Amino acid sequence: MPTPEDNAKTVHRYLEFAAAGNVDGIVDLYAEDATVEDPVGGEVHIGREAIRGFYSKVPTGNNSTEVFTLRALGNEVAWYWALTLELGDNRMRIDIISTMTFNNDGKIAAMKAYWTPENVTSA
Amino acid sequence: MPTPEDNAKTVHRYLEFAAAGNVDGIVDLYAEDATVEDPVGGEVHIGREAIRGFYSKVPTGNNSTEVFTLRALGNEVAWYWALTLELGDNRMRIDIISTMTFNNDGKIAAMKAYWTPENVTSA
Repeated sequence: MPTPEDNAKTVHRYLEFAAAGNVDGIVDLYAEDATVEDPVGGEVHIGREAIRGFYSKVPTGNNSTEVFTLRALGNEVAWYWALTLELGDNRMRIDIISTMTFNNDGKIAAMKAYWTPENVTSA
Repeated sequence: MPTPEDNAKTVHRYLEFAAAGNVDGIVDLYAEDATVEDPVGGEVHIGREAIRGFYSKVPTGNNSTEVFTLRALGNEVAWYWALTLELGDNRMRIDIISTMTFNNDGKIAAMKAYWTPENVTSA
């Protein structure tokens, strides 16, 4: 049974992998039957194969992340952060409220990301 | 079926009622079978009576709220905000990441509040 501190560490690994564009690393953090809803209100990706497909479409390269606040409680983590993506000569920043629920093995069972086009800016 | 804008308005009414300590107003925003988990990882209050009991224990008076960012998507709203409570001669501020899920009638079906003692400060 992971502690909230364990789950917070998993989130930080997730952010490192997201910055590096390490899809294999990200997918390995998820449970086999995990769900990803990013953004909330859109398609729910169910299972590792669908989740791999989702992350494979995220631009990779010299991305970076910044965490404004993170709370690990029970089997969940919520955090408010920014993801900055390098897109050729341009940079795009997305300010995101994210939540993750973890299973008893410390794998991510569910991820939700709350952001709208209003939260996307040129950086 | 409420729109995301409708749900955002309900959140703003919730915040007004929370600042005013209007328990009846708050409870009326919830569905009969709603759940409240505040903070996440603690007791889950199920149903309006239990929810009324939970909010009845929140100090009331000259409270205030400040919303840093709010995202309404699908049938959910997530927002990052501060609640400042007047406690006699003292003021206590809690910085909170909250999520709400809404049902088809526009009532709150589930609320979660992510905060720890680290997010509580004297204000």
